[in-house]
Amino acid sequence: MAARPQSSTVRPVRGDARVALLEAALALVRKQGWAATSIDQLCRTVGVTKGAFFHHFASKEALGVAAAHYWDTFTAPLFASAKYHQHADPLDRIYGYLDFRGSIAGGPLEDFTCFVGTTVQETFATSDAIRAACGETIRAHAERLEGDFRAAIALYPPRTRVTAANLARYTQTVIQGGFVLSKAQGTNAPLLEALAHLKQYLSFLFEKPLKKETSHGKRRR
Amino acid sequence: MAARPQSSTVRPVRGDARVALLEAALALVRKQGWAATSIDQLCRTVGVTKGAFFHHFASKEALGVAAAHYWDTFTAPLFASAKYHQHADPLDRIYGYLDFRGSIAGGPLEDFTCFVGTTVQETFATSDAIRAACGETIRAHAERLEGDFRAAIALYPPRTRVTAANLARYTQTVIQGGFVLSKAQGTNAPLLEALAHLKQYLSFLFEKPLKKETSHGKRRR
Repeated sequence: MAARPQSSTVRPVRGDARVALLEAALALVRKQGWAATSIDQLCRTVGVTKGAFFHHFASKEALGVAAAHYWDTFTAPLFASAKYHQHADPLDRIYGYLDFRGSIAGGPLEDFTCFVGTTVQETFATSDAIRAACGETIRAHAERLEGDFRAAIALYPPRTRVTAANLARYTQTVIQGGFVLSKAQGTNAPLLEALAHLKQYLSFLFEKPLKKETSHGKRRR
Repeated sequence: MAARPQSSTVRPVRGDARVALLEAALALVRKQGWAATSIDQLCRTVGVTKGAFFHHFASKEALGVAAAHYWDTFTAPLFASAKYHQHADPLDRIYGYLDFRGSIAGGPLEDFTCFVGTTVQETFATSDAIRAACGETIRAHAERLEGDFRAAIALYPPRTRVTAANLARYTQTVIQGGFVLSKAQGTNAPLLEALAHLKQYLSFLFEKPLKKETSHGKRRR
């Protein structure tokens, strides 16, 4: 797994223009969306010529596909190194993952919302290549939860028929929806609230009570 | 409440250019996003001059604010006239609302996904006026569920502390996330799956079992 790249504000070192363009795309698109982010702006941000851009990417669409894959590379180490994996109980690992999602949802919305969720909202009908790359990145992230859900299903027989795959996908649905509502309200509160509801659902489904201090996000009344 | 407007493909009748521009904005933005939709394209679609556009809207941003409010006018009658309101039990009305959301999620994704959810993803940091208008429309839609949630809370004391407002907001979070995942996968399956999980959560929360035929969406394995 690649080491975690540095912030997108960093200037490219020689030969690193491709990575710098990808990281500029992540930062700009998370703040202003895909279509609003032009090749010109990307080049200005990174300090390269359009020739350099087209040396690395055949088109803006090609950059979008690469950036959707790069988003996974960019974020995976953050999750892989998080402490929630240390819990012995698989459901505690899942609760820990959801708490971690809440804990990193601070600061400006564009710092914790999702490059691929934003990009696919705009491009699903106009670029199947970008849509597929975004879908693949969401799927890959969700799949990393499946092992813990599979173990939780074995350990705590759920009250209704579910699969590790559909629960993992549902976590991503709730998080992506939390981003949309948080953007609409201009605060992270809807995301934190949604994470608390999702944890509550899992505690009912697996009949494993939540610990008191984590039963609902601190923004709940 | 305004009568339901006609399809956005309709050509404006005399004096109706404002509504035609708003409906063109809804259709184009749902398919290709906010920034990708230009004033020129709106004018071409509707068959009016840029002068006519600026007669009705001071700027593209002003159109965005108006369209976010118009989206509520456009969609509210569809929900107001739906049959789920006829259930005697408030929780059945909520389940019916969620089933209705699933039932209208057919055809091309741009025909059932959300104008304001798409627009706010892109504009939250660059136009506070559009963000606020989108937030207001989501809030207004969620609020129409609050009465039923309030009645459900009174009738079926929930297993954990919730409010009508936070449950109503959570329904919108799940639906918006379902749109994002559906776009990423190019199918309505993630939305239907998410609606089924949400119904299951409510059935656990209120300890009112789901009827067998509605316990999980048909796309569940």
